[in-house]
Amino acid sequence: MTDIQQKLIATRRKFHRFPEVGFTEFITTYEIYKTLKPMDYTLYLGDDVLLRSARVGVPGKDAFLHSYKRAAEYGVPEEFLDYVKEGTTGVIATLDTGKPGPHFAARFDIDGLPITESADEDHIPKKEDFKSLHEGEMHACGHDGHITTGLFLAEYINAEKNNLKGRFTLIFQPAEESVRGAKSVVEKGWLDDVDYFFSGHLGIRNLPVGTVSAGTTDFLASSKFDVKFTGKSAHAGVEPDSGNNSLLAASAAALNLNAIARHGKGRTRINTGTLSAGSGRNVIADTAFMEIETRGETTELNHYMYKKAKTVIQAAADMYENEAEIIDMGEAPNAACSKELIETVKEAVKHNSNITDLRDTLPLGASEDVTMMMERVLEKNGKATYMLFPFALKYGHHHPKFDLDESVLHVAVSTYIDIVNWLMKNG
Amino acid sequence: MTDIQQKLIATRRKFHRFPEVGFTEFITTYEIYKTLKPMDYTLYLGDDVLLRSARVGVPGKDAFLHSYKRAAEYGVPEEFLDYVKEGTTGVIATLDTGKPGPHFAARFDIDGLPITESADEDHIPKKEDFKSLHEGEMHACGHDGHITTGLFLAEYINAEKNNLKGRFTLIFQPAEESVRGAKSVVEKGWLDDVDYFFSGHLGIRNLPVGTVSAGTTDFLASSKFDVKFTGKSAHAGVEPDSGNNSLLAASAAALNLNAIARHGKGRTRINTGTLSAGSGRNVIADTAFMEIETRGETTELNHYMYKKAKTVIQAAADMYENEAEIIDMGEAPNAACSKELIETVKEAVKHNSNITDLRDTLPLGASEDVTMMMERVLEKNGKATYMLFPFALKYGHHHPKFDLDESVLHVAVSTYIDIVNWLMKNG
Amino acid sequence: MTDIQQKLIATRRKFHRFPEVGFTEFITTYEIYKTLKPMDYTLYLGDDVLLRSARVGVPGKDAFLHSYKRAAEYGVPEEFLDYVKEGTTGVIATLDTGKPGPHFAARFDIDGLPITESADEDHIPKKEDFKSLHEGEMHACGHDGHITTGLFLAEYINAEKNNLKGRFTLIFQPAEESVRGAKSVVEKGWLDDVDYFFSGHLGIRNLPVGTVSAGTTDFLASSKFDVKFTGKSAHAGVEPDSGNNSLLAASAAALNLNAIARHGKGRTRINTGTLSAGSGRNVIADTAFMEIETRGETTELNHYMYKKAKTVIQAAADMYENEAEIIDMGEAPNAACSKELIETVKEAVKHNSNITDLRDTLPLGASEDVTMMMERVLEKNGKATYMLFPFALKYGHHHPKFDLDESVLHVAVSTYIDIVNWLMKNG
Amino acid sequence: MTDIQQKLIATRRKFHRFPEVGFTEFITTYEIYKTLKPMDYTLYLGDDVLLRSARVGVPGKDAFLHSYKRAAEYGVPEEFLDYVKEGTTGVIATLDTGKPGPHFAARFDIDGLPITESADEDHIPKKEDFKSLHEGEMHACGHDGHITTGLFLAEYINAEKNNLKGRFTLIFQPAEESVRGAKSVVEKGWLDDVDYFFSGHLGIRNLPVGTVSAGTTDFLASSKFDVKFTGKSAHAGVEPDSGNNSLLAASAAALNLNAIARHGKGRTRINTGTLSAGSGRNVIADTAFMEIETRGETTELNHYMYKKAKTVIQAAADMYENEAEIIDMGEAPNAACSKELIETVKEAVKHNSNITDLRDTLPLGASEDVTMMMERVLEKNGKATYMLFPFALKYGHHHPKFDLDESVLHVAVSTYIDIVNWLMKNG
Repeated sequence: MTDIQQKLIATRRKFHRFPEVGFTEFITTYEIYKTLKPMDYTLYLGDDVLLRSARVGVPGKDAFLHSYKRAAEYGVPEEFLDYVKEGTTGVIATLDTGKPGPHFAARFDIDGLPITESADEDHIPKKEDFKSLHEGEMHACGHDGHITTGLFLAEYINAEKNNLKGRFTLIFQPAEESVRGAKSVVEKGWLDDVDYFFSGHLGIRNLPVGTVSAGTTDFLASSKFDVKFTGKSAHAGVEPDSGNNSLLAASAAALNLNAIARHGKGRTRINTGTLSAGSGRNVIADTAFMEIETRGETTELNHYMYKKAKTVIQAAADMYENEAEIIDMGEAPNAACSKELIETVKEAVKHNSNITDLRDTLPLGASEDVTMMMERVLEKNGKATYMLFPFALKYGHHHPKFDLDESVLHVAVSTYIDIVNWLMKNG
Repeated sequence: MTDIQQKLIATRRKFHRFPEVGFTEFITTYEIYKTLKPMDYTLYLGDDVLLRSARVGVPGKDAFLHSYKRAAEYGVPEEFLDYVKEGTTGVIATLDTGKPGPHFAARFDIDGLPITESADEDHIPKKEDFKSLHEGEMHACGHDGHITTGLFLAEYINAEKNNLKGRFTLIFQPAEESVRGAKSVVEKGWLDDVDYFFSGHLGIRNLPVGTVSAGTTDFLASSKFDVKFTGKSAHAGVEPDSGNNSLLAASAAALNLNAIARHGKGRTRINTGTLSAGSGRNVIADTAFMEIETRGETTELNHYMYKKAKTVIQAAADMYENEAEIIDMGEAPNAACSKELIETVKEAVKHNSNITDLRDTLPLGASEDVTMMMERVLEKNGKATYMLFPFALKYGHHHPKFDLDESVLHVAVSTYIDIVNWLMKNG
Repeated sequence: MTDIQQKLIATRRKFHRFPEVGFTEFITTYEIYKTLKPMDYTLYLGDDVLLRSARVGVPGKDAFLHSYKRAAEYGVPEEFLDYVKEGTTGVIATLDTGKPGPHFAARFDIDGLPITESADEDHIPKKEDFKSLHEGEMHACGHDGHITTGLFLAEYINAEKNNLKGRFTLIFQPAEESVRGAKSVVEKGWLDDVDYFFSGHLGIRNLPVGTVSAGTTDFLASSKFDVKFTGKSAHAGVEPDSGNNSLLAASAAALNLNAIARHGKGRTRINTGTLSAGSGRNVIADTAFMEIETRGETTELNHYMYKKAKTVIQAAADMYENEAEIIDMGEAPNAACSKELIETVKEAVKHNSNITDLRDTLPLGASEDVTMMMERVLEKNGKATYMLFPFALKYGHHHPKFDLDESVLHVAVSTYIDIVNWLMKNG
Repeated sequence: MTDIQQKLIATRRKFHRFPEVGFTEFITTYEIYKTLKPMDYTLYLGDDVLLRSARVGVPGKDAFLHSYKRAAEYGVPEEFLDYVKEGTTGVIATLDTGKPGPHFAARFDIDGLPITESADEDHIPKKEDFKSLHEGEMHACGHDGHITTGLFLAEYINAEKNNLKGRFTLIFQPAEESVRGAKSVVEKGWLDDVDYFFSGHLGIRNLPVGTVSAGTTDFLASSKFDVKFTGKSAHAGVEPDSGNNSLLAASAAALNLNAIARHGKGRTRINTGTLSAGSGRNVIADTAFMEIETRGETTELNHYMYKKAKTVIQAAADMYENEAEIIDMGEAPNAACSKELIETVKEAVKHNSNITDLRDTLPLGASEDVTMMMERVLEKNGKATYMLFPFALKYGHHHPKFDLDESVLHVAVSTYIDIVNWLMKNG
């Protein structure tokens, strides 16, 4: 294994150990900051990274407190925690070469998932002792690898800064999961004058390491929303008839949401990810809370799911004489990669020996709030693409045994470096 | 209003302010202890009150920690908290007159409910400023009044001890809600040589203050159990097909549990009181947890519900390829009051001017773990009864606006006193 | 076995062979008519028995045609079929002794159920070869025994007519099942000047033959109604999204109807007895039809179920963007037997050696449209009671293996005869 | 309008009037036979068309009897009905030019759907008086247009037979709906030595008339199956607890079948097209019957749905203590059109002035049992394609207001004729 590969693996494993869910990436933000600090970047933190009011799906006080304590114990200094403690996480690093040239931007998402990592002995992070230290949180989507890719790209740009031209913006974005963070970065204006925008994902397609797609299709448009059912409690033994059961309203909603008819025009998704209802065993539940998302192959198909979902939820509330409140929590459009930039990537990596199978595009089949960034770049006449770096998936994304094939890291980093170099010559 | 009535109201309102759910009655236990301390009772706390291993539905560490802090802030001394901090709450007070005579025991339940009390201005505890100070907890079943009754009876017995004979045991029992605490007191042996056992409930029947029933029918037998569904998580956008959805398994269970056929032979109940499932919006839920209870007019009918419920739960798990684990959390039989003791009560209170409508029995239509105590007393050849002290119910028990008509307190206390006096003459 | 017992059994078995569901009792009506014809009764048929427009749940033309053909093949003359062919079935027989005296009326219900009788060899009607000849129809509730009781009472009254006084009305009522026929007889005025009204049921309680209750409690009030869901069809492969699925609306309704909360005040019931939906496998169903009933221990409890059911049905329709139409099909109140008449029965049968265990009342726990007749009699200042004649039930009523213990027939007939005799002396 | 167009319309409207569901196409078969009789084809009927035992989803005796009577009244001679009366419908016409050349085969499906046609005045078949005369049956998928296309192609081949070479087989296939008929024709060997196989569908895509696709993608693989639930009946008032409710088992199955997770790899479908359960309103239902289909973009995806469906059905049965029997009723694989034949079609129609927008392929998004024929042709080294002839769809296929834009008929017929002519020159 080469030296660079060993370093990539070490970095990835460091971040793998302390996954933090969206907007609570206190340790993660600090570690990214610490790595970039010695370089020549201008670093932005806290309210300089994102527009606080444009965040969606922000956790509650207890969650912030919990992460604060954990980060303090970890050793994040108090003065640093002041930047992030209310959920203004993430880092943006800019570097101006002083020479005329294009504005290159790349985005790396940094959050973990609320999943407890597998402790099976055949799960490599367990076996090789870099499993999540945070009970109930896990890098189960490969964002630890994304951070790693971003930091090594940063190192390269910094090292080569005298040979480069134009400007560089590296975005370490919080809260990609459930498409919650991108909007707040976009609203802060960071994407307003970008010429070339790149992002990408490790894994997704179950193909051999060395496969790279220069662009991506099949972003699923998505809506995220919460539902609160409010009913009436009653003694479950003495007078169950006088309650309006919120737990049953929510259960009826969950089942019938999943039963919404598939659409003839393309892929749709729905998921009630969480449900919590009721206060005590012998009380008719008078509250229920659900976190839901819909997706569609197009914005129209997502809209179909969202509209049907609202109908189902209202009817489920009526059925059990509850009130239902629907709170919108985020939305991602679908998006299209710039054809020119796909060609650019293909040209740039032509001689990359890590790449054995170069595709124009591969399908994502999921939602990504990067589409909000891409949309803004395109509106402002920039170009944008989103690349995939597949590897053989033993377990799918979001699975407790999900794991990176770490050899993909070098494929990703070398692709980004090739692109930077090519643009310096031709951009 | 008489002096005694004012004192009863003040005591009840004090306890109403700090409701604590079962086995976390740290403040409540301390306040009962403090009141009884100056009297001539022998007081028992902690592991002397109950058999720790016979408790069911014991809360988790976090709940104990939360209540510990709250009690410490309230002013409960640390050395006292050592008695109760792991859920060994409640107080038992005994007094031996030294004169031969019967062993009289009475039981008063002391726990609150996991319900947030109404803050409506027409809710008297709010208007008159003695509303629960504990967010999410409430005396919504009248146990604040039961404590009050017990303490005033204790005061009477103490004052009159030289005129009384035999022995007295006053049981301030924790965790009656969801029938969790009585068993652990019974297993400690406290009911093994009782001659006359009394307990009762304020409210229940919507009848004018002054109505008293000397006994109670229609105790519902009950089973309490938890269910854990374990499925498989997956990315809800990329490959929803590879998940085994626990949230839907639980929802299907909840609906079909309520749909279990009513029984031709009598009353049955089922309630899924709480449901919590899933970890994140865009992850197929791989866990779900439910707290369930069944009830039946007879032990046989409860058994019918419990058996059907197990069938439904297993099938719901199978339907979504989940594993289901059923954890039994408590059980109460139904019970019958001693006919002789009903007659005793009727004789004893014949001249009680607070009682305007004296009944042999009234139906409870609910479950009460006092039936475990009654069962033990009867087995040991003692006699037992359970009395009801109705008042006009504006809102049902377990409702956020439930409130005592405080004039019922004097009815209850004077009934107990009459009984003690009568037994001293005739018992 | 006595001669009378043998005759009772033979008659019952004859009727058992040709069960006919409500309002299609063409053969049954004819056979009752034929038996009564030689006696001195005035017989009423067709529109003289009932008010055609007051019937509910009348079958469709096809059902009438089917029964017409079957009856014609059986040998019922065409001119007789003209009386009944549109569902005006049943017979009323009156006899006036010419002597002053009370007006005695008794009612016997005559319809079968839409159940296919068991062909198991251990099922006595199969083994002894008197099983239903009508595929899909069965006397599974004992009305064959009720007809038999009525005919033998008729024979007794006819034989003794010179020793009797007052007037007699024997009502052989169609369509008791689903409480559909009684109203139409009541509306015709037959119950308007009755002094003593009697009816009863064989079985119901699983007690030894010889047990008789002079009255009955726990009539369940009941509402019967149909629901039509109308949605929108669509090709299930090409564009499932454009359908509004009536089959799922009905399924959601059925499940959630059964899940309506039990009532604290007493027994309730709900049953969706039939559901038919959809037209073809590859078409989204655009229609669904359900036959439903609710019951309650009191009219108020039935009303609770009916109201909740309407809420559930409307919400299920909304959930799948269907229209729901609710069509009321019949209603029965609950009722109370006259205390005096219970005493009368007890006096009358005091020396009946067939009766070994005489009760004041037993609970029915079901609905019976006889309550409409009882209600009218009581309104007009008559007296009414409903008796039960239990036997050991191997299988419950409405079960494909339900069977009478035929020795109960003599208990029932002799009870009626004792009552007639006693009333002649004392009425 | 040209003469040929008028004739096409007249023929289509004639068949539109007497739609007959699969295997009961007695009138339809007769009318096709009558039209072909005067030509020089060898005609095959009855057991010569299909292998009786390879049919799936054959209707019951009553359906055959009903259609027999209807066809006899229509004027189909008894001796002709003998060929079809047990469901051996359809016609195969062959013509051998006697000159060496390829074996050309085309297939036209002839069955209607169990849908009642709209009687709205704005529905053209109603307004112009050619609406279905068969209550409950309708040509709602355009097979009337398919028959018409086949007959006019037959007429052309017959007229031009001296200028043609090779052999022709025209298959008028019964029971395409629910993919039931093709297999029985395939098993008879009719596709075993075909060189070029063509079939197609009118409509499907909502595009202007004049659009033609030379091939089709996105055949959905499909499984058809029935489910019988068997439970236990009971009196719904007296002892609902002793029933095992089949209606609720089926309802739970229907809801949870629709809730099976969408698949990450592509389109899936599920439909419970019909459900019928229960025998009477006041009886706990002891039987339920469902007709179900699953589909998938690939055979693997269909298999996923079928497997999950079986799991859901078994669990729903267990939940209500029912037995479930699953009866397979038909299966269609997915299929791929021969690339060479797509090119052939494109060449052949190059100068067809009716075609304004020629596509290589369009997606079907549905199941078609033609895939069984295509599979057999390909196995035997022939070539096969399936063409689409879109028109502007006001209402989707299988909708009660579905209607052909009749101008599409000439597009389809002229395409087939062009293909025949081109193959004669080049094939």
